Amino acid sequence: MEQQYDFGLIGLGVMGRNFILNVADNGFTAYGNDLDEEKVNALKEEGGDLNKVNATTEVATFVKALARPRKIMMLVPAGKIVDTVIEGLLPHIEKGDILIDGGNSFFTDTDRREAHLSEKGIHFFGAGVSGGAKGARKGPSIMPGGSKAGYAAVQPIFEAVAAKYKGEPCVAYLGPKSAGNYVKMVHNGIEYGLMQLTSEIYDVLKKGGDFDNDELHHTFQKWNEGRLASFLVEITSEIFEQEDELGEGRLVDQILDKAKQKGTGKWTSQNAMDLGIPVPSIDIAVSMRELSALKDERVKADDLYDRPEVEMIDQTVLEKMAEEALYFSFIVTYAQGLHQLADASKEYGYNLDIATIAKIWRAGCIIRAGLLADITKAFQTDAALPNLLLSSSFVDKVKGTVASARELAAYGAKNGIPLPGLSNSLTYFDAYTSSRLPLNLIQAQRDYFGSHTYERLDREGIFHTEWES
Amino acid sequence: MEQQYDFGLIGLGVMGRNFILNVADNGFTAYGNDLDEEKVNALKEEGGDLNKVNATTEVATFVKALARPRKIMMLVPAGKIVDTVIEGLLPHIEKGDILIDGGNSFFTDTDRREAHLSEKGIHFFGAGVSGGAKGARKGPSIMPGGSKAGYAAVQPIFEAVAAKYKGEPCVAYLGPKSAGNYVKMVHNGIEYGLMQLTSEIYDVLKKGGDFDNDELHHTFQKWNEGRLASFLVEITSEIFEQEDELGEGRLVDQILDKAKQKGTGKWTSQNAMDLGIPVPSIDIAVSMRELSALKDERVKADDLYDRPEVEMIDQTVLEKMAEEALYFSFIVTYAQGLHQLADASKEYGYNLDIATIAKIWRAGCIIRAGLLADITKAFQTDAALPNLLLSSSFVDKVKGTVASARELAAYGAKNGIPLPGLSNSLTYFDAYTSSRLPLNLIQAQRDYFGSHTYERLDREGIFHTEWES
Repeated sequence: MEQQYDFGLIGLGVMGRNFILNVADNGFTAYGNDLDEEKVNALKEEGGDLNKVNATTEVATFVKALARPRKIMMLVPAGKIVDTVIEGLLPHIEKGDILIDGGNSFFTDTDRREAHLSEKGIHFFGAGVSGGAKGARKGPSIMPGGSKAGYAAVQPIFEAVAAKYKGEPCVAYLGPKSAGNYVKMVHNGIEYGLMQLTSEIYDVLKKGGDFDNDELHHTFQKWNEGRLASFLVEITSEIFEQEDELGEGRLVDQILDKAKQKGTGKWTSQNAMDLGIPVPSIDIAVSMRELSALKDERVKADDLYDRPEVEMIDQTVLEKMAEEALYFSFIVTYAQGLHQLADASKEYGYNLDIATIAKIWRAGCIIRAGLLADITKAFQTDAALPNLLLSSSFVDKVKGTVASARELAAYGAKNGIPLPGLSNSLTYFDAYTSSRLPLNLIQAQRDYFGSHTYERLDREGIFHTEWES
Repeated sequence: MEQQYDFGLIGLGVMGRNFILNVADNGFTAYGNDLDEEKVNALKEEGGDLNKVNATTEVATFVKALARPRKIMMLVPAGKIVDTVIEGLLPHIEKGDILIDGGNSFFTDTDRREAHLSEKGIHFFGAGVSGGAKGARKGPSIMPGGSKAGYAAVQPIFEAVAAKYKGEPCVAYLGPKSAGNYVKMVHNGIEYGLMQLTSEIYDVLKKGGDFDNDELHHTFQKWNEGRLASFLVEITSEIFEQEDELGEGRLVDQILDKAKQKGTGKWTSQNAMDLGIPVPSIDIAVSMRELSALKDERVKADDLYDRPEVEMIDQTVLEKMAEEALYFSFIVTYAQGLHQLADASKEYGYNLDIATIAKIWRAGCIIRAGLLADITKAFQTDAALPNLLLSSSFVDKVKGTVASARELAAYGAKNGIPLPGLSNSLTYFDAYTSSRLPLNLIQAQRDYFGSHTYERLDREGIFHTEWES
């Protein structure tokens, strides 16, 4: 009898190849599958020992080589290709086999696929994987949901390959149906928000404090040793050091300022609107990527308008203000994303435990940060916390930094340095902490022109007024 | 032979009843239909002469009473009910009849229905109607799209009932398929943005300048006589005068600060994200309605955090600053919505003429404003203008007011008065007019952790770097 492998992986791109090598490093045998022969050969070569890591372009060969029940993970681009891969597998796999979608599939697609496959007795589940290429190789954060029985079968492998935070693997079963993909989607939404914020802080340090790339490098490096410690702050510090191999100076200065996106941030914002949960720090990050892409229009508009002369700030003063503003905005962005998760959990029946999610984000994933240990504790203390800003353990962190967020947002507004992520984090905070907002006027307007009715502060009921004009 | 009526209308709610009376006022005979007998009787009574305005609860009677080709308009809530009404009509109507959806249907629903009905030879089209109850009665703005032949048949009626701007009716055929519903959706998105902005200005006048309701009334009234002249500014001025019949003082102070929504603003934001067009002044208006609904959380959060003491501003100074900031933000909000329309026109093949849209918004609709005459001219001068901010006729308007937008946004940030609509209008402006944005850092981060590649400023091509860590 041919050798039977422990784990199969379809899609040998950067993420897939790295994930399978990670599986093999942890003592499991693994088999890869990709239509592209080059990728298949590259994996076989990199794996070294074919008894440990093998690969093929043939689906039938691939499935036959796996031990039953088969554990197959797909790491292919989200969308139709996932359905195509599943249809191609179906004639070869059988009842009891486990099929995992490790990509960024839209959550309703996952629900549809699970319904379809569970009829055939296949344990299907979505498992978000975060950590980029390096994470996949050395230990990602994995966010599985869906079939609990299916997850149990791969749990030993996932726990072995996942990143470890103080010894604890950054993977846990999160909930039924598409819970895994949904959590990964919101993870990416938060990621968009944090990336936008770091780019704004970079901009304001440069324009307002004349920080050069070395100073930026050192500043972010120092911040990464404090309460802002996080993967994104760490790599930002490293980015400023990278020399440009095609020219003089640092690479960052030659990179075009058009940011691309693959859709998970957009989905987060769109779905938050369906739920009715405000996530403006994420929305604006999506908008700014879109706006960045309109480079030709921006160049024309820049010609038409003047910008105020920037009033420079002492580097030490600006650095402190920026650190506090960034920390404040990071907290608010996590708060918004987790608020969305708490609401989605009710809406879609995921029964999520936010503390568990924060726990498995503490290492491996792109939004890993020192803050997540505090966030974990906040939700361990109160699992039903509607919003992180309501946690008593966060009140002092916020109170101690909001003044700098105010100063910096005001400075950006006055000096024509766009800080939309910071502004949205601040105005969200100011609105969320307002027992009264001026939206009574909006209800009055709606009743005035559309007879949409209103409620009152002083008594129960629904009211309509024939407004005098 | 029984009398044959010129026009039929299904759905005798406030909008429907008013629209049909408007039709009758203009010399056309009209027949109404609603399942609710009370509404039917109310219309008959209000119409006075049954030879001019009649109504029934029976669909068969209704259809039989209409002259061929029948011209039937639905004014019923968007969603499944529209399909139900259509299915109920189908056995009674025939080839060549014209069916109009005057509600806020989602544009893809309109496309689906048009495809379905055109197979049966029915001329179906969506026509957004704006103006609220009063507009429907006295002259709304009407935004028809879809079947051009179908529109030609009702054109005389629509042109008669529509609002007039200097004699020109505020209705025009806008484009094929769901163009009418799409334009109305974005109209409502802009409406959300403008309403949010007026509510913020109300808040800052009150908190920063201690304006009482009489002063607010006079301020908005004065503004309405200047360049801010608009329906929303006008009714806002009137709202501050309205006495509270159930208590002492002004009604506005007793209205609960939870703003409801029916979905068109949300759809505008969600679809803008699908198109990749940034509309942050609309997005934030949606978010703020959502946030307003979280009243219980806001009350708790308010208890936990302090707010800075507000530094008061002289009323005259603040009034001038607020007027300029509001004018600036109105322009930016229209610019974003029209940008979305220009892009949707390409994406969905609507072939929209933005000048025509601005023209029919000059009177009748909720976002009618003096500004729209200027906007019409800007797009008449350059139909392909990608963004209003690029129109030479708007440069001076923006340059003359942006300084106050900066001052006021900074003031809100420092003093804990949330002005998210204003801030987003300003940061959008600052980003849109930046030939360079700091999103080069985001592309660097994406390439660092996900090998997503980047472009360069100094040469063509797609690049990837093995970043040193």
